[in-house]
Amino acid sequence: MSSNSASQTAGKPIRCQAAVCRKAGEPLIIEEIEVAPPSSWEVRIKILCTSLCQSDLSFWKLSAGPASAFPRILGHEAAGVVESVGENVEEVKEGDIVIPVFKRNCGECRYCKCPKGNACSKFSVDYPCGMPRDGSSRFKDKNGEKLHHTLRVSSFSEYTVVDVTHVVRMSPDFPIDKASLLSCGVSTGLGAAWKAAEVEEGSTVAIFGLGAVGLAVAEGARLRGASKIIGVDLNPEKIEIGKKFGLTDFINPTACGEKSTSQVIKEMTDDGADYCFECIGLTSLMQEAFSSCRKENGKTIILGVDIHGTPLSINPRELVVSGKTIIGSLFGGVKAKVDIPIFATKYLNNELNLDGFITHEVNFQDINKAFDLLQARKSLRCIIWMDK
Amino acid sequence: MSSNSASQTAGKPIRCQAAVCRKAGEPLIIEEIEVAPPSSWEVRIKILCTSLCQSDLSFWKLSAGPASAFPRILGHEAAGVVESVGENVEEVKEGDIVIPVFKRNCGECRYCKCPKGNACSKFSVDYPCGMPRDGSSRFKDKNGEKLHHTLRVSSFSEYTVVDVTHVVRMSPDFPIDKASLLSCGVSTGLGAAWKAAEVEEGSTVAIFGLGAVGLAVAEGARLRGASKIIGVDLNPEKIEIGKKFGLTDFINPTACGEKSTSQVIKEMTDDGADYCFECIGLTSLMQEAFSSCRKENGKTIILGVDIHGTPLSINPRELVVSGKTIIGSLFGGVKAKVDIPIFATKYLNNELNLDGFITHEVNFQDINKAFDLLQARKSLRCIIWMDK
Repeated sequence: MSSNSASQTAGKPIRCQAAVCRKAGEPLIIEEIEVAPPSSWEVRIKILCTSLCQSDLSFWKLSAGPASAFPRILGHEAAGVVESVGENVEEVKEGDIVIPVFKRNCGECRYCKCPKGNACSKFSVDYPCGMPRDGSSRFKDKNGEKLHHTLRVSSFSEYTVVDVTHVVRMSPDFPIDKASLLSCGVSTGLGAAWKAAEVEEGSTVAIFGLGAVGLAVAEGARLRGASKIIGVDLNPEKIEIGKKFGLTDFINPTACGEKSTSQVIKEMTDDGADYCFECIGLTSLMQEAFSSCRKENGKTIILGVDIHGTPLSINPRELVVSGKTIIGSLFGGVKAKVDIPIFATKYLNNELNLDGFITHEVNFQDINKAFDLLQARKSLRCIIWMDK
Repeated sequence: MSSNSASQTAGKPIRCQAAVCRKAGEPLIIEEIEVAPPSSWEVRIKILCTSLCQSDLSFWKLSAGPASAFPRILGHEAAGVVESVGENVEEVKEGDIVIPVFKRNCGECRYCKCPKGNACSKFSVDYPCGMPRDGSSRFKDKNGEKLHHTLRVSSFSEYTVVDVTHVVRMSPDFPIDKASLLSCGVSTGLGAAWKAAEVEEGSTVAIFGLGAVGLAVAEGARLRGASKIIGVDLNPEKIEIGKKFGLTDFINPTACGEKSTSQVIKEMTDDGADYCFECIGLTSLMQEAFSSCRKENGKTIILGVDIHGTPLSINPRELVVSGKTIIGSLFGGVKAKVDIPIFATKYLNNELNLDGFITHEVNFQDINKAFDLLQARKSLRCIIWMDK
């Protein structure tokens, strides 16, 4: 790997190692690639570590559709240091520690200025496959072939180029591996509890699926003072893991006898939880979450993306007469540049448990092991170190 | 009608006139009934005027199901004066001007104390047909037969008995007919814009159905500074009526050629309105409203109750990836005792247009005319005066 300093490399292409996904579902291949200098509004980042999120698995397996494109560079949870910046970038400079985020936050548009939600209308066009603003790629392989970006981040590379609206500056003393966690999955779960649902003190929460996102929802609900945090998962090992993130109760749906999960949740709460989070991406679970939330303002927050496209069928009478809400939440309603620094401060103040999410670490050469671990549901987050 | 003063009547039954609904869909019959004194936590109200809301039509036509019960006293929008109060009632006293509301607000439970939403967990059991806390009736006809309550209000009577959690005190100088409007429909629409959706300055709004509720949504959005308020209705007369309530644009779905309403709305806005309100109760319109709201945090607020029970089918991927929200809103998220006084102040400050909702007035003997007018979609609100 190059040990370039910006004075040597700024404005020039950088040759470095990347884990390229050449075909859906096949192991990534570590190759030498060329990373173009950042264009206007862009930041070139030297990745220090990256981590593997469930969405990377989905993109990795995706063999058709507009979001499928090969060869590509996956990865969207990471932390790194700014190598150089393009024109018009004033927010960060060479040497800054940053994390890339897949959800933009320009800070200037009407939506970014509104305290609610995390919409951003900075770009009029969203290029497919998460390409840069101009729709072109900053990566090519050693034969000069274009490599596709993913989610505007592509962190499975020693260097990547990211739009400045997709970059959050971190304090230089913040641990790099914990920073990577805040780049996507954990922030999504924390945000879902804090921002999308606005869980309040004393409320009751049910979480369907206790992967990293679901556990981050639990952690967020715990910090908000929820009185009951019920986890639903098929894996009984999640009981003990969940307790570290504030879980007070656990339901294994296969151990409920003749009762449905929603019946059990209704019995455990005041006829339904105040907030139900679906963190898997199964329509049947979304229906169960909707049934499990209380009448009168019960909220169902959907975080998982159903890849089968099975429609969610809702009784509109139940929706209105019960005054229920269904929230589809991308990135947990987190405004990256506003909220991630708040999460970081909570971690530094020893309020927020981030360490518990890191179950495995590998070096970049072994990145496919991280895929194996997540597929086998053995890891929450595996940190992939670029330089070890 | 009796001209009782509380000193004469408190603690005793009152005989008075009521419009009784003896059979689904048949004209109401003005009869002499007996109204019991208020039990503990209850308030007996001398109704001064009442108005007819679309939900009364639904209950009037309802010939089966748990919410169907005859003979009954309909009506849930009204204003009146407290005749007497039962034990434990300290919030209001004889002579106070009040409006009854179908949605309780005890002010003491966790939900009432939470700034969000309008849930209230005061009663553990909700008796069907909107009966009092103990499930019994305060009304009987001249033969001693029990008359059912409706929505805990039953305002189509010279006197009614309402739980104190369903009563809001009004300033004595507030016009009585405008107070009646705030009792349900208009507050529902205003609340949907202000509380459930939290429409903010500069946002875009689409309203499906321009009855009193839909127009009140427009009025609420106007007061919140929405930049574009699009009304959707089959009746072109609603263009001019709507302008009085802030409508900036109008769509007649039958005049859109080959385009769907959602396509037209997307063209008129930044690829979808920020907030879409369904105020009719048709599942097909709810789907269209969902399609019409913008990706990234677009919100669909459902106010209409679909009586056919057709399920709402939602693509969960669209929900999450677009970050859309569907809010089922009962009473527009209004906390009666907190928010109605705010609406009242806005009216007294000449900010809120309430006068425009009153299109007709009849005396109590002609109450069936109010039904005819609303059924024929000729009225927004018809004030029914008890004493004229």
